[in-house]
Amino acid sequence: METRQIGRPLTRNEDPRLLTGRALFVDDVELPGMLHAAFLRSPHARAAIRSIDTDAAKARAGVVAVITAEDLGEYWQPGPLLVPPPPIKGMVFRQRCQVPLAKGEVRHVGEPVVMVVAESRYVAEDAVGDIVVEYEPLPPVIGLEAALSSDSPRVHADLPDNIAADVHQAKGDYAAARAKAAHLIRRRFTYDRGASNPMETRGIVAQWDHKAEKLTVWDTTQAPVFIRNGLAAMLGLSERQVRVVAPFIGGGFGPKMMMFYPEEVLVPWMALRLDRPVKWIEDRLEHFTATTQERSQVHDCELALDARGKILGVRDDFLMDTGAYNPYGLTVPLNSQCTLLNCYDVPAYDSRFRAIYTNRTLVTPYRGAGRQHGIFVMERMLDAAARELGLDRAEIRRRNLIPADAFPYHNELIYQDFAPLTYDSGNYAPILDKALHAIGYAEFAAEKAKARAEGRHLGLGVVCYVEGTGIGPYEGAKVRVQASGKVTLATGVGTQGQGHFTSFAQVVAEQLGVDVRDVEVTTGDTDVFDWGAGTFASRGAVVTGSAAHGAAVEVRTKILKTAAEHFECAEADLVLADGAVSIAGVPENRITLGELARLANPMRGAVKPGTVPGLEATSYFGPQMGATAAGAHAMVIEIDAQTMRPTILRYVVVHDCGTVLNPLILSGQIQGGVAQGIGNAFFEELVWTDDGQLLNASLADYLLPTALDVPRMDVLHTETPSPLNPLGTKGAGEGGAIPVGALFAQAIEDALDLPARGIEVSEIPLSPSRLWEICNPSG
Amino acid sequence: METRQIGRPLTRNEDPRLLTGRALFVDDVELPGMLHAAFLRSPHARAAIRSIDTDAAKARAGVVAVITAEDLGEYWQPGPLLVPPPPIKGMVFRQRCQVPLAKGEVRHVGEPVVMVVAESRYVAEDAVGDIVVEYEPLPPVIGLEAALSSDSPRVHADLPDNIAADVHQAKGDYAAARAKAAHLIRRRFTYDRGASNPMETRGIVAQWDHKAEKLTVWDTTQAPVFIRNGLAAMLGLSERQVRVVAPFIGGGFGPKMMMFYPEEVLVPWMALRLDRPVKWIEDRLEHFTATTQERSQVHDCELALDARGKILGVRDDFLMDTGAYNPYGLTVPLNSQCTLLNCYDVPAYDSRFRAIYTNRTLVTPYRGAGRQHGIFVMERMLDAAARELGLDRAEIRRRNLIPADAFPYHNELIYQDFAPLTYDSGNYAPILDKALHAIGYAEFAAEKAKARAEGRHLGLGVVCYVEGTGIGPYEGAKVRVQASGKVTLATGVGTQGQGHFTSFAQVVAEQLGVDVRDVEVTTGDTDVFDWGAGTFASRGAVVTGSAAHGAAVEVRTKILKTAAEHFECAEADLVLADGAVSIAGVPENRITLGELARLANPMRGAVKPGTVPGLEATSYFGPQMGATAAGAHAMVIEIDAQTMRPTILRYVVVHDCGTVLNPLILSGQIQGGVAQGIGNAFFEELVWTDDGQLLNASLADYLLPTALDVPRMDVLHTETPSPLNPLGTKGAGEGGAIPVGALFAQAIEDALDLPARGIEVSEIPLSPSRLWEICNPSG
Repeated sequence: METRQIGRPLTRNEDPRLLTGRALFVDDVELPGMLHAAFLRSPHARAAIRSIDTDAAKARAGVVAVITAEDLGEYWQPGPLLVPPPPIKGMVFRQRCQVPLAKGEVRHVGEPVVMVVAESRYVAEDAVGDIVVEYEPLPPVIGLEAALSSDSPRVHADLPDNIAADVHQAKGDYAAARAKAAHLIRRRFTYDRGASNPMETRGIVAQWDHKAEKLTVWDTTQAPVFIRNGLAAMLGLSERQVRVVAPFIGGGFGPKMMMFYPEEVLVPWMALRLDRPVKWIEDRLEHFTATTQERSQVHDCELALDARGKILGVRDDFLMDTGAYNPYGLTVPLNSQCTLLNCYDVPAYDSRFRAIYTNRTLVTPYRGAGRQHGIFVMERMLDAAARELGLDRAEIRRRNLIPADAFPYHNELIYQDFAPLTYDSGNYAPILDKALHAIGYAEFAAEKAKARAEGRHLGLGVVCYVEGTGIGPYEGAKVRVQASGKVTLATGVGTQGQGHFTSFAQVVAEQLGVDVRDVEVTTGDTDVFDWGAGTFASRGAVVTGSAAHGAAVEVRTKILKTAAEHFECAEADLVLADGAVSIAGVPENRITLGELARLANPMRGAVKPGTVPGLEATSYFGPQMGATAAGAHAMVIEIDAQTMRPTILRYVVVHDCGTVLNPLILSGQIQGGVAQGIGNAFFEELVWTDDGQLLNASLADYLLPTALDVPRMDVLHTETPSPLNPLGTKGAGEGGAIPVGALFAQAIEDALDLPARGIEVSEIPLSPSRLWEICNPSG
Repeated sequence: METRQIGRPLTRNEDPRLLTGRALFVDDVELPGMLHAAFLRSPHARAAIRSIDTDAAKARAGVVAVITAEDLGEYWQPGPLLVPPPPIKGMVFRQRCQVPLAKGEVRHVGEPVVMVVAESRYVAEDAVGDIVVEYEPLPPVIGLEAALSSDSPRVHADLPDNIAADVHQAKGDYAAARAKAAHLIRRRFTYDRGASNPMETRGIVAQWDHKAEKLTVWDTTQAPVFIRNGLAAMLGLSERQVRVVAPFIGGGFGPKMMMFYPEEVLVPWMALRLDRPVKWIEDRLEHFTATTQERSQVHDCELALDARGKILGVRDDFLMDTGAYNPYGLTVPLNSQCTLLNCYDVPAYDSRFRAIYTNRTLVTPYRGAGRQHGIFVMERMLDAAARELGLDRAEIRRRNLIPADAFPYHNELIYQDFAPLTYDSGNYAPILDKALHAIGYAEFAAEKAKARAEGRHLGLGVVCYVEGTGIGPYEGAKVRVQASGKVTLATGVGTQGQGHFTSFAQVVAEQLGVDVRDVEVTTGDTDVFDWGAGTFASRGAVVTGSAAHGAAVEVRTKILKTAAEHFECAEADLVLADGAVSIAGVPENRITLGELARLANPMRGAVKPGTVPGLEATSYFGPQMGATAAGAHAMVIEIDAQTMRPTILRYVVVHDCGTVLNPLILSGQIQGGVAQGIGNAFFEELVWTDDGQLLNASLADYLLPTALDVPRMDVLHTETPSPLNPLGTKGAGEGGAIPVGALFAQAIEDALDLPARGIEVSEIPLSPSRLWEICNPSG
C-alpha cells in the first residue's frame, strides 16, 4: 500500500450504502406508535390573528393533539442559544427571533400557526383543513426601499422602523482615495432571492423513551450538537438526555443550519408531551416558504481608480432583506461586505449595510452565504472600469490582484467569525492565467468573430473570487484503532453529501498506515461525539480535518509506543504500514494494529498511572481565523438571440483551496456549486407579489437547472497551502457557486455586445424573458 | 451547602426512579416486530446427540427460525476474548469454552441445543416441545474425586482426563515450618454449590437497524464494554456498530459477568440474521441450570503451629468443580487459594488446587468468588487449633493477626488480577476487638449458661476475613458541566444496585461544589462511555470512583481557569461552591457553572490551540494491584435442639474498607452480603443426583432466606485508607458474604457443644436436616 493517502482521487466510502439504498435518511425512521405532524401555516404575509377555532380539528378521528401558541406558554427561550452580535463599533443590531407558533400576528406566508398531531399525516393534513383562523390582513412590508420609508408599516411593532441592523465598516481613507482618483465608477446592482431546494426537504422524528428518560431526535440539521444543546436547554432536559442524530442528508447548503426552526423544537416537544414518537417531513410546498432563503440585496457602489486602472478605493452601501425574523445574526451581510473586496488589493473601503425586516421568508446563509453579492458587485464594477479605461477585462483584474508576497493580507474588517478579516495565503495571478489559458482567452476573439459570421452569439466571461472558509469556533475528532484493526473516526459535524466518510478517512489513514476503506467515520450523532459546531462556512475539511489529523497523529504515537514495548525496541526502528507495525528490515517481526489495540486494552493487569487505555485519541482544532480560498471561473456561452436561451459551450474552474485531500471529491463539490450557481444566475427566481405571496412555489414553476443545463467543466487546481492548519487545506464548499452570477453577466454582455448598445447586466437572477427585457429596455 | 460530600449518608439518587417504576429493565424493552426466543435444553448431564428433528417446530404457525449448531457453522470464535491464563510457573490450564449450541454432545443439564425464534414466547415454547432430539445418554462425571479416577468418563473427550487446571503456589518453606511445629492440625472440608438467584434473571434484547447499520443489545450483563467488544468481534461488526446497554439490573452478583453466555451471542446474531428485534428473558427454571453457579470445593488442609498457637505454615490441597466448561479462567480457585491466608501472618504456605471438569452447570464467580472457601478453611482450622492448644478462639486469632506495622504485607502468590498478592494497608486488631465488644464476647459465657439453664442452646461465633478488592485493569470516567449547570458523569461499568448513581455523584460533587442531586450518572451504555471492564471483584468504588475523582479534579481546574479569565483575577482568589464561582470576599461577583460551561464552548470565535472546549475531562484509573479490605463478623445464634432451626439473636459486622463514600450505601452492601451469606451457609443448597439432575430447581424447593431469616445487624466501621488510590477507599461488595459460612459453623458448634461430643462442622451449606445428621453421626 502506498503511504500517501491525502491527495488520492478515491471513490467514496459512503457510496455503496447510498447507491444501494441502505443509507438511513430521516424519513426512513419508522417507530411503533409513531404520530405524524402537519402545520397550519399563514396564508398572509402580514395579518393579525383574531381567533383560532380548533374544535373541529380536535374532534376528527385520529387526531391526537392540536396546539397553538396559547398551549406553549413561556416554555422555551431560544434567545440565548443564538449567535451573539459581532463586535463592531457603532453597529445597530436589533435581533428578533421567530416563535414556534405565531402569536397575535403572522409575519410571512408559511409561518406556522397551528400544529396538528395525528395517527397519520393524511389525518393531520385533513385536520389542518378543519381549523378556522380569523385573520385581519395587514399591509405587508415587501420592497427593501419601501420598507425604509417613514410611513411604512413595521414588521415588528416594538421596533421604531424596519431596520434589523445598520453596520458600517471601513478600511483606509476612502474620501482621500476618491479625491485622488482618475476614474470614479458608480453603479447600482440588485441580486434577488433564490432557494437552495435540496433534494431532501427538512424532516424531524422525535422519540421520548420515558423509561430510559431519553429523547432521540433524528433531524436533517447541519448542526446536530447545537440542536442537542438547544433542545436540552429549551425542554429542561440534561444534555445527556437528548440525542440528536443527523443521519445521511440529501443536501444541506446552509438553510439546514438554522437554530431553531419552529418544527425543530415543536416535534420533540410534542413527542415528550405525548410520550409517543412524532414525525414531520416537510413537503416541497412548505419548503418554499418555511425553509430559509437568501440573496435579496441592493448595492450602490462607487469604485475609485487611478489612470492605470489600479483600484484606489471602493464605497458600497447596500440593503439586505433579512425576512421577517433574524435568528441567525449578520452572517450573510457581513460576508457580502467582506467578500466584496475579493482578491484585489484595495487600500480604502467604506461600506455600510442595512438589514431590513420584511414580511417574507427568513434569510439565512445558503451556499455562498452573501459572498456572491460582494463578488458580483466588484466583478461588475471592474468590467465597467475596464471599458471606461479601455483596458482588457483580464488585464484590469491582473493589475489589481493582491501580490503573492503580500500575505498574510489584512482587510481590517470584522468577518462572520468575528475575527478581523485576513487572507492567510494566496497566489492569485497563476489562477487567473490558468483560467485564461484553459478557456482559450487569447483565441476567443477569432472564435467569436467566426461564430458571429455564422449568426451565432458567443460570449466569454472570466471572473475572480475569494472564499473565506474554515472558520472557528472549533471541531473535534476521536480516532480509535479497534480490536479488529479497523479504525474509527467520530466527529460532531453532520454531513450532507460532502464526502466526509472518505476525505476524513484519508486524513486518518495517512497517519495510521491503514487502508482508507478500513477507516469508518461517524458524523452527526451526539451520542457518539457531541462537541463541535457543524457544517457551514466551508469548514469541514479545514477544521474537522485538522482535528482528525491531530487525533490520528496522537494515535500513531500510541501505536508506535505500544509496539516498541511489545518488541522491546526503539520506536525509531519501527515501520507502520499495511495495518501493522514491523521492525525495519525484519518484516517477519510484525504485529497487527488489532493485536496492538488488544494489548493496549488489557482484561487483566493494569493500565499504568497517567496513561490511558486503548489506541485512541481525541483532538480539537480551533482556528484563530478562517483560511481564504480563491479561484477564477471562465466560460464561453452561446446565447440564442431570438429566445435568449443560453448554452454553455465551455466552463473552466481554477481553484486554489490549499492542500487537496481528494481531488475527486473536491471536483464534485465544485461542480455541484457551479450547478447551483448556474441555477441562481439564470434559471431560478423566487417570484413574489407585492403582497408577499410567492407565485412559483413548486418545482414545476421554480426552474432548477437539470443535467441538460449544467455543462461538463474543467476543474483545475493550484495549491497554496494555508499556514493556519496542519493539513494546509482550505474549504471548497462554496467556491463553485460564488462567482457564477458575475460570470453570466459578463459573458452575456459579451455574447450580445450589450455594452456597445449602452446596456449592462446589473442584476441576478436572469432568465430568458428578463434578459429579453434588459436587451430591449424600451419594451 | 457543605463542601464535604464524601462520607455523607445520603439516600440514593436512583431510588425515585426505581421506586416509582420508571427505571428501565431489559424486559421493559418492547420493540416493533419483536420476536421471542426459547431454547431447547439438554435434559441429560451427558449424552451424545444422535439426531435433531426440527421439522414440526418449523412448521408451527408463528415460528420464524429454528436453529441448531449446524446452522452456526464456524461463525464465531469466542476463544481470544476470554480472560488469559495467569502467569504461574508450572501451571496446567486446559480451557474449554462452551459453544452457543451443543454439537455432537451435551455436557450438562440445561445446555442449549436448539434455539427457536417465534412471534411470541408462547409459540416459541410450544415449538420447543415439537422438537425431537435423539440422545444417547452417557455416564456423567459428577463427583470430584470420582472424576479423577483413571476409569472415569471424560467431560471433554479431547483431554486426557478431567483436569481443567492444576496449580501449585507456595510461600516460604512449608516443610521446614512443619518440621519445627509443636502442633499439626489436619482437616478435610467440603463447601458445596449455591446459586446467586438475583431477583431479575438474565435477559437480552437485540435490535439490528439495517439502515443505521447498528446493533443495539440490551443485556443484563455486568460487563457491557466487554460484551460490546466481543459481539463486534464475533459478529464481524465494528465496535462502533454495536451498542450494548446494561440498564437497571435486578442484581448481578457475578454470574452476570460471564463472557459469553450462549444466549448472549445467539440473540444478537438472530436479530442480525432476521433483521428483526429478538427478546429472550430467562425463566427461573432456566436460571437454575443455565446460569453459572459456584462453590463446590473439597479441601485437605494442614496447619502447623508453635506451642503458643502462632501459625508456622499452612498446606492445602483442594479440588474444585468447574462444571462442564471453563470460559472464565481460574478466578474462583485463585481467590480460594489466595484468600485462605486471611488476615494472618503466615510465613509458609504450600497450596495446590485442581479444577475439575464435571457434567454440571459452569462455575464462575458469585459474590465472594471463592474467597469464602479459603476463609472457611482457615477459620475452621484456627477453631480446631484453639481447642487443641486450649486457647480462646479470639485469642488464637489475635496472636496471628498481621501487625499494623507490617503493611504493605506481601503474600507472594499470584492473585486473580495476575499481580502478586499484597495487602496494601490494614489495622486488624481493632476490628476484632470492636466485634468482640459489640457482640458481648466477654459476657457471653454467662449468657449462654443462663440460657442453657432454661433449656435454650445459644452459641457465639466470631471470625475474621479479608477481601481482595478493587483490582485492575482500569476504569474510566467522563465528567462534564452542562450548560444547565448540572453535571454529568459517564462510566463504562454497569450497575446492578450498588448505588453508583449516588456514591460516584458524591465523589464528583465533592470536587465541583455542586449538589449531589445535580450530578447525573450514566453507567452501562457503550454509546456513552465504552472503555472499562465492569462490575466485579468489588472494584466499582475503588477503580471507577478514583477515575471519577480524577476527572472531577481536572474539571475543577478548568472551572477555576475559565472563571479566573472571566473575572480577570487569580485562581487563588476564587471560591467554588453552591454551583457557582465567586471572588472570595466579593460574593456578588458570581458566575454559575452553567454560564462558565457556555463560555468554555463558544459559538463564535475560536478555541485556543492546545486547549479543549467545554468543562469536561475524561480520566482513567488503573491500580497496580487490588486494595485489601478486612473485617470481622460476630453472631449469637440460638439453635432449637429438636428441629435444628437456627435463630440469629445478634449479628455484628465490623468492616474496614478504607474511606467510606456513603455509609448508608455501604451498610446496604454489607447487609445484602450477609443475607446471601446466611442463605449460602444454612438455607440454600443445590441438590444434584448422581446422574447430574438438579432436584430443587425452583424457588419453592431452593430455599432463599426471607426477611424473617435475616436479622437486623449492627454494621460498624473502622477506616484504614488505602494508599493505592486517591480516595483511600477499598471495595465492600463481597465482605458481607465471605465469612458467614465459617461463622455459622463456629456458632453452631458452640451452641450445641459439638466439639465436646467429638463432632465438628466441616461443611457448608448446612440445613436443619443436615445438621441433624452431623449431630447424630450414627444415624
